[in-house]
Amino acid sequence: MKRVMLTVAYDGTDYCGWQVQPNGDTIEGQLNKHLSELLGEPITVIGASRTDSGVHALCNLAVFDTQARMPAEKISYALNQRLPEDIKIQKSEEVASDFHPRKVATRKTYEYKIYNAQFPNPTMRLYSHFTYVPMDAEKMQEAAKQFVGEHDFAAVSTFKPEVESTVRTIYDLSVTRESDLITIRVTGNGFLYNMVRIIAGTLMEVGRGRMEPSFIPEMLASGDREKAGPTAPAQGLTLVSYTFEK
Amino acid sequence: MKRVMLTVAYDGTDYCGWQVQPNGDTIEGQLNKHLSELLGEPITVIGASRTDSGVHALCNLAVFDTQARMPAEKISYALNQRLPEDIKIQKSEEVASDFHPRKVATRKTYEYKIYNAQFPNPTMRLYSHFTYVPMDAEKMQEAAKQFVGEHDFAAVSTFKPEVESTVRTIYDLSVTRESDLITIRVTGNGFLYNMVRIIAGTLMEVGRGRMEPSFIPEMLASGDREKAGPTAPAQGLTLVSYTFEK
Repeated sequence: MKRVMLTVAYDGTDYCGWQVQPNGDTIEGQLNKHLSELLGEPITVIGASRTDSGVHALCNLAVFDTQARMPAEKISYALNQRLPEDIKIQKSEEVASDFHPRKVATRKTYEYKIYNAQFPNPTMRLYSHFTYVPMDAEKMQEAAKQFVGEHDFAAVSTFKPEVESTVRTIYDLSVTRESDLITIRVTGNGFLYNMVRIIAGTLMEVGRGRMEPSFIPEMLASGDREKAGPTAPAQGLTLVSYTFEK
Repeated sequence: MKRVMLTVAYDGTDYCGWQVQPNGDTIEGQLNKHLSELLGEPITVIGASRTDSGVHALCNLAVFDTQARMPAEKISYALNQRLPEDIKIQKSEEVASDFHPRKVATRKTYEYKIYNAQFPNPTMRLYSHFTYVPMDAEKMQEAAKQFVGEHDFAAVSTFKPEVESTVRTIYDLSVTRESDLITIRVTGNGFLYNMVRIIAGTLMEVGRGRMEPSFIPEMLASGDREKAGPTAPAQGLTLVSYTFEK
C-alpha cells in the first residue's frame, strides 16, 4: 500500500466544481473513475481545495492510497491518457502514508482576472470576468494593501456554520493592469468559502469608485458581509500555486 | 444606403471557419443571420480574412451595405446582444461606399502559440498547440529572421490554383518564450493559404533540432512544400491585428 499525491490542472468551465455531487460531473468524480479503472481497485481521492463550479486550477492536489504496483511517478502519464482534455495531471509522486493535504500548513495563490474593455473578448471569456465599467487599477491596488496581514475575514466570506475560526493570513495581494486585463493575485495560508471572489468583488467596487480604499479596514473589522462587495463570478478565478510550509 | 465595417473578435473553436458552408456553423453565417434579423433586410457580409476552422481572431473585418437607419456606430452594441458568447463585435463604423477589405493594402499580424511543457495545461488548450518535445526558442528565432522580407512563399503554403502570385512580404517574424509558452508573431502584407501554420510547423522542426535555421533560405528558394515542416494545428493561431496602409 502506498499514498500518492497528484498535482491536477483543470478548466472548470464544464464541471460542477471539485467535490463529488449526486447530480453533475465533478473533478473529483472524474479522478475517482479514471484512477479506479486504471489501477483496477476502487479509488477515492482526498482533495486539497474544493474549488467551486466554474473555477479553474493549475495545481490543485489530490491524495489517494493504492495497492497497485505502478510506480507513483508513472501514474501521471497513464492517467492523462484516460482523462478528458480539460483535466490533466501535472505530477504524481509518492508521499508519506499519513500525509493529508488539508492538515498541513500551506501557502496558496489564486488569481482573479477581469477583462475591462468596451466589448467582451471571446477568447478571454472562459478565464476572466468581463466588465465594461472603467476600473481604476491603482485605486484597487491601494485597497488591496489593506487586506494584507492576519485578520478576521468573516466580512469577505460566505458563512459556514462548521468553520471554527474566520481568522486567516494574507501574505500578499496585488492588482496589476496590462492593457485591458486586470489581474488580482492573492497569496495566503488559507481562504474561507468564497473569500477570494468576495475580495475581487470588493476591489471592483473600489475600482469603479463606489467604495474608498480607506473603507477596507472598517469593513473587515465590522465582520459584516453586507459591507463588502458582491461575490465576483466564478470563471475569473484560478488556483495558480500551492506550496507546503516547511 | 451606407457601407458599414465591423471589427469582429471570435473564438473559432466551435466553428467551421469564417466562410459560409452548406453544412456547419461559420462566423460569416452567424453575422449574416443576426445582422439580417437586427436590420430587417437580407445582409451578406464580405470578410477580410477567411480564417480556417478552429482559428481565432481579435480583429477580423466584415463589410456590408444596409438601408437601415441605425447609426453605424450603434450596430456593435445591438448586434452583440444577439451574437453568441464566442463572437463579439469590437467596433462598427461607416466606410466609403466603394471600400472593399480585400482590395486595399493591409498589414496583418498573426500569433501562433505553443504550450511546451511535460504535460498539457487545460486552460491553454483551446488557444495553443501543446507539445512535450523540448523546443529551443532561440534557434527558432534565428530561423524566423530568415523569413523576413519579400519572398516567394510557395514552399510554405498549400497550393491553390486560383492564386496568381505566391510572392508576399513579411515585415516582422519573432519567436519569444515566457515560461512554458512560446509565441510566434508574424506581420506581413498578406498570407497565402496555411502560410502562418506552415511557418509555425517549420519553426517547430527547427525548435526540436530536426532542421537548421540556415536551411530556411534554401527551403524557400526551392518552392517545394515537401521541404518545409508540417502544417501546425489550427487552435494555436489567432489573427491579432489588422491595419490598412495609408
